[in-house]
Amino acid sequence: MRVVLVYDIADERRLLIVHKVCKRYLYWVQNSVFEGELTKGKLNQLIRELEEVIDSEEDSIVIYTFKEKNLTGKIQYGPDVPEDRFIL
Amino acid sequence: MRVVLVYDIADERRLLIVHKVCKRYLYWVQNSVFEGELTKGKLNQLIRELEEVIDSEEDSIVIYTFKEKNLTGKIQYGPDVPEDRFIL
Repeated sequence: MRVVLVYDIADERRLLIVHKVCKRYLYWVQNSVFEGELTKGKLNQLIRELEEVIDSEEDSIVIYTFKEKNLTGKIQYGPDVPEDRFIL
Repeated sequence: MRVVLVYDIADERRLLIVHKVCKRYLYWVQNSVFEGELTKGKLNQLIRELEEVIDSEEDSIVIYTFKEKNLTGKIQYGPDVPEDRFIL
């Protein structure tokens, strides 16, 4: 299934770990947005890894899942996010 | 159609304006994420308003659109985002 993941992590150390975990499963769209195609199993695995890292009192993660063919549009503004822009 | 909008705005003044514009069309899910149901006309109106505010060299916006019934899942972690948490 298609996955869009958006995070808002309050702590820099956790942010770095969340970013690294997401990169192993999805591709980076924008500072706090990842996208990709995952099986249900892989998504559950990603969720378990994230649950081990985040502080649910302070951090937020929203994950949308849908079938690729049902995404009717995507509009993106702004510069691309090359890997080297991510400096912590 | 269902709309998910994620922004990453580099400047605080522009961020505040973008947030206010988005709030008139969509509801706030997480710090930089808005969601809602919009007609094509309303979406175009929102896009025009945002284009007037953002600096496309520095700011990013990603807008996903799909049919409501085809969003297969949404998983959200972390605290809700009450309006008063948005302090600039």
